[in-house]
Amino acid sequence: MLNFLQTGRQGFARRGQVQLRRSTVETPVFMPVGTIGAVKTIEPRDLERLDARIILGNTFHLMLRPGLEVVQHHGDLHQFMGWERSILTDSGGFQVFSLAKIRDIDDRGVEFRSPVDGAKIFLGPEESMHVQRVLDSDIAMAFDDCTPYPVSCQEAEKSMLRSMDWARRSKKAFQGSPSALFGIVQGGVYPQLRERSLAHLLEIGFDGYAIGGLSVGEPKDEMYEMLRFIVPKLPADRPRYLMGVGTPQDLVFGVACGVDMFDCVMPTRNARNGWLFTSAGTVKIRNAKYRTDTRALDENCACPCCARFSRAYLRHLYQINEPLYARLATLHNLEFYLGLMKRIRAAIENDTFHEICAEYEVVV
Amino acid sequence: MLNFLQTGRQGFARRGQVQLRRSTVETPVFMPVGTIGAVKTIEPRDLERLDARIILGNTFHLMLRPGLEVVQHHGDLHQFMGWERSILTDSGGFQVFSLAKIRDIDDRGVEFRSPVDGAKIFLGPEESMHVQRVLDSDIAMAFDDCTPYPVSCQEAEKSMLRSMDWARRSKKAFQGSPSALFGIVQGGVYPQLRERSLAHLLEIGFDGYAIGGLSVGEPKDEMYEMLRFIVPKLPADRPRYLMGVGTPQDLVFGVACGVDMFDCVMPTRNARNGWLFTSAGTVKIRNAKYRTDTRALDENCACPCCARFSRAYLRHLYQINEPLYARLATLHNLEFYLGLMKRIRAAIENDTFHEICAEYEVVV
Repeated sequence: MLNFLQTGRQGFARRGQVQLRRSTVETPVFMPVGTIGAVKTIEPRDLERLDARIILGNTFHLMLRPGLEVVQHHGDLHQFMGWERSILTDSGGFQVFSLAKIRDIDDRGVEFRSPVDGAKIFLGPEESMHVQRVLDSDIAMAFDDCTPYPVSCQEAEKSMLRSMDWARRSKKAFQGSPSALFGIVQGGVYPQLRERSLAHLLEIGFDGYAIGGLSVGEPKDEMYEMLRFIVPKLPADRPRYLMGVGTPQDLVFGVACGVDMFDCVMPTRNARNGWLFTSAGTVKIRNAKYRTDTRALDENCACPCCARFSRAYLRHLYQINEPLYARLATLHNLEFYLGLMKRIRAAIENDTFHEICAEYEVVV
Repeated sequence: MLNFLQTGRQGFARRGQVQLRRSTVETPVFMPVGTIGAVKTIEPRDLERLDARIILGNTFHLMLRPGLEVVQHHGDLHQFMGWERSILTDSGGFQVFSLAKIRDIDDRGVEFRSPVDGAKIFLGPEESMHVQRVLDSDIAMAFDDCTPYPVSCQEAEKSMLRSMDWARRSKKAFQGSPSALFGIVQGGVYPQLRERSLAHLLEIGFDGYAIGGLSVGEPKDEMYEMLRFIVPKLPADRPRYLMGVGTPQDLVFGVACGVDMFDCVMPTRNARNGWLFTSAGTVKIRNAKYRTDTRALDENCACPCCARFSRAYLRHLYQINEPLYARLATLHNLEFYLGLMKRIRAAIENDTFHEICAEYEVVV
């Protein structure tokens, strides 16, 4: 279950609140990714300080390690990882297709080998819903077939129809849960398929609607084209979630199309790889020009990293593989992403969102 | 310069204050090791929360990376690493002997190859003092020759005499510095050599006296024997520092002999390797018995790790190589070490230190 209040708008951009079991999420929102029970290098109290209200957990990873039994001993995923606010879990579908050695795939689901210990595992809509119910995430995602890119229209249709069948079974298997369930629009880069997918989902009925299968290798123009086309068609009274996207520009573009929710590993993964987001552009901290640069990473940022350390110090920590580097860099990049969303929310309230669009060269 | 106030005692155990340029250190004290400009995984604000007043920096590592020039751009090591309280730097001697490919060693000093880039580097007492002055540590250590173990009495004597010559030159090179300089008693496992070394140092005159060359492979009984013998002979009006030691029991033993200051990588390194100190004994977190253990690591501990996470969660993070594991484990082990020292200080004040000795089976 979930309550969505739209509290403001500017053009297609929406300002709202998603009321969940454990927290109220101000939208548009960016959800940090806590893949295997932790946002890498980050404590829950750091996320609280960042005013994050919802994070992501990955069903596929968590069912492999620590496994459901361990989580159940703690009650649920929240108690296991010491995070009392909301969690959205993906269905496991995406990771099965990208990370596991698939043994067999048919309309029932997917049989694969665990990349951890080689064990044979079966995951279909019923199994995915079971896992997500045990994790007790506040938003569960329907199990879907991952359409590759590039793919023919015929293949994309077949994959989409399978996802729609799985969406129906996901809904059925999730009945009685106090949490929310989102359906996922598929259909690759084919607008008619996307529309048909959405019609299927609306017929089934979900608490929110996600757009999946984008940012999977297609040119950015194609992704933007598809967002322009499909996002305004999603029901206005339900939250809209763009999965696995993206760069700061992508977030601004998505919001401009009417997206409410985003997740992406970009701020956290890029941080670890030395790619830092600042108000003055990207800083690749390994660059020799930062060797003696005593300035803060971002002089307009108040995060624990920028408040105390220089670019030269961060570069030093990066060079010596000091684990503190990844933590400071991640704290900063999350501050940047969550700060951008905060700016966007305020801008929609104040009818100044077009200024942020101009800043990021976003034209919808 | 340094002021030492002895504020209490029980037997040989001393309670005191070391007043340094940047902070007043309550003794007996354990100093966390911040090898290359960071206590691994830990932020300065974490150390402040732990009420750490002084940490260690390693001259050898810092001169290689980031190099003096980078530190100088920030002012000093404190400003570089964002730590305003005190820092003790070692002389680099120990690491030169244990980590570098030595090209040549004579009475002038040591020529070695940088393990980072193969560059030829010379380090003698004058060079070590120069580096420590640039780092502007609050306590510098005299440059010394590292006596191996086992070693003949003759070799140990030769090494000790070289260290004493280097101590004299260190004192001279350090003249005019506002910081404190400690001399290091050497002489291996030979009591007469240790006594002669101390006599040399006293003649030169230092702000504090350290015991070096222990915990280098000798049986623990021999180390304890030597501490019983030499610590009470160190001047009572100066701080006494036992270098690179040790286990919680070693700390209690050292204090019982009259030691004021300790450092060791044990709490931080062991944390990363899954070895956790608790009030109920050691926890090796990788052990399968912790897989579903929902209890806090140490139910008598209020650290950020024990306040929020279970043993099973820590074990999970350890198993998946999540960097957050090392941070939480290090926070806990430092809490344990610094908490033990706090207990020891209170016990000496209350004449109950013998109870801690009994708890750790320490007999001096």
